Amino acid sequence: MTRRRILVVNPNSSASVTAAIDEAVAPLRIAGGPDIEVVGLAEGPPGISSQRDADSVVMPLVNRVTRDDADAFVLACFSDPGLHAVREAAGGRPVLGIAECGIFRALMLGERFGVIALSPSSIRRQQRMARVMGVDSRYAGSWSVGASAAETAGADIRGRLVDAGRALVTQCRADVVVMGCAGMASHRAAIAEAIGVPVIEPAQQAVAAAIGAVLLNT
Amino acid sequence: MTRRRILVVNPNSSASVTAAIDEAVAPLRIAGGPDIEVVGLAEGPPGISSQRDADSVVMPLVNRVTRDDADAFVLACFSDPGLHAVREAAGGRPVLGIAECGIFRALMLGERFGVIALSPSSIRRQQRMARVMGVDSRYAGSWSVGASAAETAGADIRGRLVDAGRALVTQCRADVVVMGCAGMASHRAAIAEAIGVPVIEPAQQAVAAAIGAVLLNT
Amino acid sequence: MTRRRILVVNPNSSASVTAAIDEAVAPLRIAGGPDIEVVGLAEGPPGISSQRDADSVVMPLVNRVTRDDADAFVLACFSDPGLHAVREAAGGRPVLGIAECGIFRALMLGERFGVIALSPSSIRRQQRMARVMGVDSRYAGSWSVGASAAETAGADIRGRLVDAGRALVTQCRADVVVMGCAGMASHRAAIAEAIGVPVIEPAQQAVAAAIGAVLLNT
Amino acid sequence: MTRRRILVVNPNSSASVTAAIDEAVAPLRIAGGPDIEVVGLAEGPPGISSQRDADSVVMPLVNRVTRDDADAFVLACFSDPGLHAVREAAGGRPVLGIAECGIFRALMLGERFGVIALSPSSIRRQQRMARVMGVDSRYAGSWSVGASAAETAGADIRGRLVDAGRALVTQCRADVVVMGCAGMASHRAAIAEAIGVPVIEPAQQAVAAAIGAVLLNT
Amino acid sequence: MTRRRILVVNPNSSASVTAAIDEAVAPLRIAGGPDIEVVGLAEGPPGISSQRDADSVVMPLVNRVTRDDADAFVLACFSDPGLHAVREAAGGRPVLGIAECGIFRALMLGERFGVIALSPSSIRRQQRMARVMGVDSRYAGSWSVGASAAETAGADIRGRLVDAGRALVTQCRADVVVMGCAGMASHRAAIAEAIGVPVIEPAQQAVAAAIGAVLLNT
Amino acid sequence: MTRRRILVVNPNSSASVTAAIDEAVAPLRIAGGPDIEVVGLAEGPPGISSQRDADSVVMPLVNRVTRDDADAFVLACFSDPGLHAVREAAGGRPVLGIAECGIFRALMLGERFGVIALSPSSIRRQQRMARVMGVDSRYAGSWSVGASAAETAGADIRGRLVDAGRALVTQCRADVVVMGCAGMASHRAAIAEAIGVPVIEPAQQAVAAAIGAVLLNT
Repeated sequence: MTRRRILVVNPNSSASVTAAIDEAVAPLRIAGGPDIEVVGLAEGPPGISSQRDADSVVMPLVNRVTRDDADAFVLACFSDPGLHAVREAAGGRPVLGIAECGIFRALMLGERFGVIALSPSSIRRQQRMARVMGVDSRYAGSWSVGASAAETAGADIRGRLVDAGRALVTQCRADVVVMGCAGMASHRAAIAEAIGVPVIEPAQQAVAAAIGAVLLNT
Repeated sequence: MTRRRILVVNPNSSASVTAAIDEAVAPLRIAGGPDIEVVGLAEGPPGISSQRDADSVVMPLVNRVTRDDADAFVLACFSDPGLHAVREAAGGRPVLGIAECGIFRALMLGERFGVIALSPSSIRRQQRMARVMGVDSRYAGSWSVGASAAETAGADIRGRLVDAGRALVTQCRADVVVMGCAGMASHRAAIAEAIGVPVIEPAQQAVAAAIGAVLLNT
Repeated sequence: MTRRRILVVNPNSSASVTAAIDEAVAPLRIAGGPDIEVVGLAEGPPGISSQRDADSVVMPLVNRVTRDDADAFVLACFSDPGLHAVREAAGGRPVLGIAECGIFRALMLGERFGVIALSPSSIRRQQRMARVMGVDSRYAGSWSVGASAAETAGADIRGRLVDAGRALVTQCRADVVVMGCAGMASHRAAIAEAIGVPVIEPAQQAVAAAIGAVLLNT
Repeated sequence: MTRRRILVVNPNSSASVTAAIDEAVAPLRIAGGPDIEVVGLAEGPPGISSQRDADSVVMPLVNRVTRDDADAFVLACFSDPGLHAVREAAGGRPVLGIAECGIFRALMLGERFGVIALSPSSIRRQQRMARVMGVDSRYAGSWSVGASAAETAGADIRGRLVDAGRALVTQCRADVVVMGCAGMASHRAAIAEAIGVPVIEPAQQAVAAAIGAVLLNT
Repeated sequence: MTRRRILVVNPNSSASVTAAIDEAVAPLRIAGGPDIEVVGLAEGPPGISSQRDADSVVMPLVNRVTRDDADAFVLACFSDPGLHAVREAAGGRPVLGIAECGIFRALMLGERFGVIALSPSSIRRQQRMARVMGVDSRYAGSWSVGASAAETAGADIRGRLVDAGRALVTQCRADVVVMGCAGMASHRAAIAEAIGVPVIEPAQQAVAAAIGAVLLNT
Repeated sequence: MTRRRILVVNPNSSASVTAAIDEAVAPLRIAGGPDIEVVGLAEGPPGISSQRDADSVVMPLVNRVTRDDADAFVLACFSDPGLHAVREAAGGRPVLGIAECGIFRALMLGERFGVIALSPSSIRRQQRMARVMGVDSRYAGSWSVGASAAETAGADIRGRLVDAGRALVTQCRADVVVMGCAGMASHRAAIAEAIGVPVIEPAQQAVAAAIGAVLLNT
């Protein structure tokens, strides 16, 4: 039997974010498990900040998934852009959104989740996401660090990420925090230690969920 | 002062639907009010049924709005495709979605609204819309007539529309019904009379709202 | 055909508030549109602050509407007093409440609406209104200016209105603000500019909605 | 010390309903407890069916309570008419609404409560009440018996009450039922036995709650 | 006929808390009412702080209730531990939880209730309780005093209780406060006076509700 | 490094259910992944039907987890009994409940999930679970097959499971179904084919989630 394969698509064109995701999911590459391939989207913008950015990648994602024979797909942008259209295109193969997976995992670790947001414009999308997912009663809020996706993959941002995480706990009364971008994985443990509540890196969670879906065919 | 203008975009390429919308909004063309121009979207699919259909028109709508100097815009598809991206593109000019406007108007006329849906695949979008709008507690449900957008502009469909409306009242306990497509206006009064509760045609409501927004600059 | 007519009833007896409403709706008086008549309610209290104030005007409003042959009615108090009883009395003619119309319009411009309240006693009514409308998940909160209805029509109040609006944005995380009284229209644009988010004057919105309802007979 | 007194006001003028309430609360008249006085409202309509009926009794109730020196008040109509205005008028003395008390008690006995409604026009009020109370997620629905308040105090109505209760269980999936009128107490046990789930008579519950409030001064 | 009897079980083994409850319910012991017996649970922990504490008393409570012939039971811990299992064991006899009763009573006195919590670990349970009760939209939040159950029965704690109550009003915008432990009754009136909103002692409310249930057999 | 280990505890004492779970999770046993050990709970009842059954296993589960050095735990009963107390006992090691995991996975595959319930008494627990999880707006309902846990592991039950699944789709309008017991895995694919919507086996999902948690240390 051919080895199964999960395709993780970073819908922006920032190579540093793609690399950060690739590194973040390394612990999930195990013997007997599916291959995990992480790719960027050449047609994507450098980062997804505005709603236009998010919507601009939907058809490219649909096309990418349609022509790829992977066994499962992960959309590695916290806006979960095109999640439902991509699911149609995947013809029954599992499609995981990192926001959905990250938030649901967070809800197993705390009562109220907060989101570290890149920018004010992404907060509104996160507010709509909490409602469309039907988990609004457990959403503590989002806090912006005012950064681009590419910046979050670097080291300099850590202090601001910690500050945002702490504000979510003290101002918004969150007891679990989700990182609202796919490139922040290297900061996860440090933020969790600094703020004293669990911190979730959503791309890792989505890939883990994809492994389960591939193994179970469900 | 130049006369103000509202651009109503039917995001599908069905001329009969565009014509039906044009006729539906005729009562709103008054001497002192803005011009109301109704256009189709050449790039759009014949009708919007799948999520892919809905998402495929977002960037064309963004582009259309960006290059048009209208004073306000109405997105005349019940999926409100690209509503938030188009709002960004409109640079502060009002953008009205027909689902938002139709549903909010319905909530002034009844306690629980139902939606006549074109197809099962649109029902899921309507369920998500009720949640993202935050009005889920007043959503009675959707009932499919299993038709294309173009069919709903014709006369043959009326019986099925009435049946769906009645099912919403008796099965889902709706007390007001919204037509879940922009082309059904000619059937509105007949359905309302047949089922005994108010029936809302959403494109009319969105254009009416656009007139107010234009006159008030809010 | 006789010209259609919208009757706007300010349920308090404060002439300055009635005059402020009359001025606020001036942009909606257009050729081809319905007449817009703004009247006070002689039986009403000077302002509506307590729940008793609000309830005391319901039967007078019912009586006023019953004996008036207007084509549509607007209840111009943010408590929407007697909305459902007046609708019964109107025998199918449209009845618009300014809170309902202002809030629904706000929900098209932001994710979370806040309300500038006259007094602490009106905040509780606004909390109940958000729940009864079913839009509680999008209600950021209310902030009191501690003023009477008549005061809000004057110029001295502007600073306090701005402060309340700013508190709604910074403390309650609102991204759109509704003025919680019918007499504040002259301050709308100034507050919006000062606080950086859209501000809605609800009486204007309700009259705009009434125009649509009259033109569409829906 | 003078004996404490609870005033129960039936806001309609139907003597048979007042008598039915008086009989229903008899088990709550105990040594050491407060007096329980049940009165009708001469100004009230024969029954409260329309919203106008409900609103018409608010100011008479406010006036009745203002001039009465009872230690607590029960509003014995399932619309809880004027509940908040009467609370203002009572100056800190407890005011209990029978819908509030009946519904909260029901929520201790089942997961989803249904309401036996007098008429379709009262169902809408009950839907609003479930939302304004914030317990909509536990509201299974209402079922109308198509009767007047006075009829419900008589014996002939029992079969229809049982049918409505059964429909709430089988159609709406309620597991506890509240009687949506103050005059139905004599049927309570019989309906409960027939339909197999607990049935709550709300006037009894409100008077019981008033006794607690009087004894505890809270 | 034998006198009816309500058994109030304090599920912790702290005699001072049991004594505080006994004193708190004294005003509810009236000539014609049921006996009210307050007991501790020898098997219980000194106080209920962790979830393990709460769960550890469920089977002892089930056993206690099974072998006792009381006419109604009150579980006097704000976690309402084992409420549904104890109801099964009671075979139809009423079982009242103090959190359920305290919160429902609070909802008659304000729009948004806050809870004075013993410790951060109990806040999470209160958050889950608000959701499971379906009253989350009216829950303002909880504020911890960082104390044990036994401490709350003493006098030294009053200042911290007042501080927590005030924080609920000013930070969380509560307009009614529930004491989140069964032993705080002696501080109730003082806190209410200090913070200016009603304060509910839940054990009193549950015993009052039990009296009604016993008298009404419902 | 020692191989990591997931302990799956079936909290009832039915060996056939334990065996069914063991078989269900076989596809998740891969070369590079953790060991997956499935055990029954000797102290548990034959099946978990009443709330007493569910609560009776909490302390035994707490004790089992406390003394076991597994790296993660799965509670394999759809009531998720003792989930929060076991998490405390696990000292930071992941604890997955099968209801939580099954329901969150279902929410990625449909808009409204339904649950195949063993018995009417488990439906109430599922209703509370949907609320406590905060996903009530996406819960279509539960449908009972009237069977014991042991029966569901056998072949004879399949027709009743299909009937229940179909009722969830047609009566409750679910578009994804979760099996409400840990022993039904062998029927999953057959039910899904028969009813035409995805069907989730929750024990598989929880073990898959545990693998991710073990690999990611989150």
